[in-house]
Amino acid sequence: MSARALEALQSADVIVGYKTYIDLIKDLIQDRKVISTGMTREKERCAAAIEQAAAGHRVAVVSSGDPGVYGMAGLILEMLEARDQLKTTPVKIIPGITSATASAARLGAPLMHDFAVISLSDLLTPWETIEKRLVAAARADFVIVLYNPASKKRDWQIKKAREICLYYKAPTTPVGIVKNAAREDEEIYITDLSGMLDYPIDMLTTVIVGNRSTRRVEGFIITPRGYVL
Amino acid sequence: MSARALEALQSADVIVGYKTYIDLIKDLIQDRKVISTGMTREKERCAAAIEQAAAGHRVAVVSSGDPGVYGMAGLILEMLEARDQLKTTPVKIIPGITSATASAARLGAPLMHDFAVISLSDLLTPWETIEKRLVAAARADFVIVLYNPASKKRDWQIKKAREICLYYKAPTTPVGIVKNAAREDEEIYITDLSGMLDYPIDMLTTVIVGNRSTRRVEGFIITPRGYVL
Ligand SMILES: C[S@@+](CC[C@H](N)C(=O)[O-])C[C@H]1O[C@@H](n2cnc3c(N)ncnc32)[C@H](O)[C@@H]1O
Ligand SMILES: C[S@@+](CC[C@H](N)C(=O)[O-])C[C@H]1O[C@@H](n2cnc3c(N)ncnc32)[C@H](O)[C@@H]1O
Repeated sequence: MSARALEALQSADVIVGYKTYIDLIKDLIQDRKVISTGMTREKERCAAAIEQAAAGHRVAVVSSGDPGVYGMAGLILEMLEARDQLKTTPVKIIPGITSATASAARLGAPLMHDFAVISLSDLLTPWETIEKRLVAAARADFVIVLYNPASKKRDWQIKKAREICLYYKAPTTPVGIVKNAAREDEEIYITDLSGMLDYPIDMLTTVIVGNRSTRRVEGFIITPRGYVL
Repeated sequence: MSARALEALQSADVIVGYKTYIDLIKDLIQDRKVISTGMTREKERCAAAIEQAAAGHRVAVVSSGDPGVYGMAGLILEMLEARDQLKTTPVKIIPGITSATASAARLGAPLMHDFAVISLSDLLTPWETIEKRLVAAARADFVIVLYNPASKKRDWQIKKAREICLYYKAPTTPVGIVKNAAREDEEIYITDLSGMLDYPIDMLTTVIVGNRSTRRVEGFIITPRGYVL
């Protein structure tokens, strides 16, 4: 967490967030009014935050990672716009460390060259759009970072994503799998496209697939930037 | 800066980094031995860091943003590997807030959907590779984040990147330009593909080009995630 995020939490009188994230920061926000709901209640949380702000409170809305990457920042702005309150409500977005770089740091340096961030969740995006992006990214040799790779109910998307990658990338292309990055129960796996489905991949996991120069060395994944040593 | 990065700086006895970045943190590292060199001396800085570590010092190597995104993490690992010191040197990579999300936070929420990060520097990458990735990303309707967009000597790449975007994206596609994000002399511009070249774009700037759903609203750029409000 950044110093600015901590400051924002400590100067707020109402904290709004998904229950799991609130639990992670409970020691930092003692005595503060907390509004927390379950995973799929994002709109509800946003509405509550906006109402609290309208009532004169200083509200902090908590996201995991960076709030602007599949996080709460966009929804808050959109909802304020829909209610015609965007002009009158002061909003400050405080950036954070997103899962792509948090996970990359645990794997070595897989993101040293151009990369594409793709969510495999087809709840809010048609699968055709996701597939088109996977094809484009794999074909143009991007390093690919997969968010929302799988959940209990969504299990075929990661298999399909792997197939698309295998069409353009070698089976030995390094793959890093990080679950709960920077949290207590962190798990880190380094494997390749061919073997990746043997590892646990779920909704708390980020998957990074290398480009054609990415290498596995001594327990690290390295994508060279192009420096000749 | 994250609490972990601060901790690492404060527990190091040697700090290595590009002069500009060292200046930004000088109050935090008083009394510490500092090795700093100019912009293009990356290999020199890495070599110095490795030698200091081999001599038994605790060394912190400083990058801007996230060290794993076109930063120093990869070069350090590669250089340790080339010297056969990767196994014997403990390395810890501490993630940071990369320019993509730091800049996005100042613009609103442009990165709420899939995005591609592309460096326009053709010093270490052939322009054909960069162009191929620009085409792929623009065609598959990614939000596009451009790092190293221009410098005094490199001025045509950003024009060419804009042309490629214009082939696949509407001229009214929102574009955000952020210079010196989160620093004292920060500059923020919100414009569109058609007008973007009228704004100052240099090597301290990150440029974010929207996807087909991205909108400009009340001084913000918003890419909807797909929630129906
Ligand atoms: C709705 S997105 C939110 C992303 C978040 N705003 C960010 O910037 O990291 C949820 C996805 O982020 C990734 N994620 C979030 N926290 C993570 C963690 N601690 N370790 C690994 N991946 C994580 C997973 O891919 C997960 O399915
Ligand atoms: C060699 S890359 C280093 C990127 C850095 N490691 C990161 O994660 O942000 C340099 C490029 O990062 C971007 N950049 C770095 N610092 C920035 C800042 N404070 N504001 C905007 N862009 C920045 C610019 O595009 C610049 O040309």
